[in-house]
Amino acid sequence: MFRLTVQYDVPSDPATFDTQYFSQHVPLCASIPGLQATTFSKPRVVGPGTAPYLVAELDFEDVDSFKAAMASPEMGAVAADADTLPAGRVMFTGQLSDG
Amino acid sequence: MFRLTVQYDVPSDPATFDTQYFSQHVPLCASIPGLQATTFSKPRVVGPGTAPYLVAELDFEDVDSFKAAMASPEMGAVAADADTLPAGRVMFTGQLSDG
Repeated sequence: MFRLTVQYDVPSDPATFDTQYFSQHVPLCASIPGLQATTFSKPRVVGPGTAPYLVAELDFEDVDSFKAAMASPEMGAVAADADTLPAGRVMFTGQLSDG
Repeated sequence: MFRLTVQYDVPSDPATFDTQYFSQHVPLCASIPGLQATTFSKPRVVGPGTAPYLVAELDFEDVDSFKAAMASPEMGAVAADADTLPAGRVMFTGQLSDG
């Protein structure tokens, strides 16, 4: 499994972020070709440090499926929409291995 | 699903970290009661920002299973071992929802 993780910072306006994120952005994500599973969570930190405000994980079969998705017009629309969300984000990708 | 995420910073000595992590820490994690799945990845950042050096995700059926695990002697041993790893970490927990 190859995963794209998107971690959002605390928004300037959480209520506006949540409305736009869940009513507009999440439905757009469902159109991404090759997407096998998606999860969302609003975590709480355990111990020192800071948790992201929201974590989205988009899973693909392998890196080739992910690269094809990244080149798709659907992902282009998702990225353009994400840029209008009122929160910074960090994205990273990686191959998952089981424990 | 209720998830504990552990994100490690870049270690002062990555080779030492990797050896201790995969040969000592990961086998300890397998003993945690109620643990349903574990994944590890060494991600790469996409765009601006910094990716964690290593991400571990420990999944439990629900928050009660997680709380029971946190109170177990096995998790105590895992936490004590993690404190000897040569890298800082941030941990957070959250209920996962599907997209």
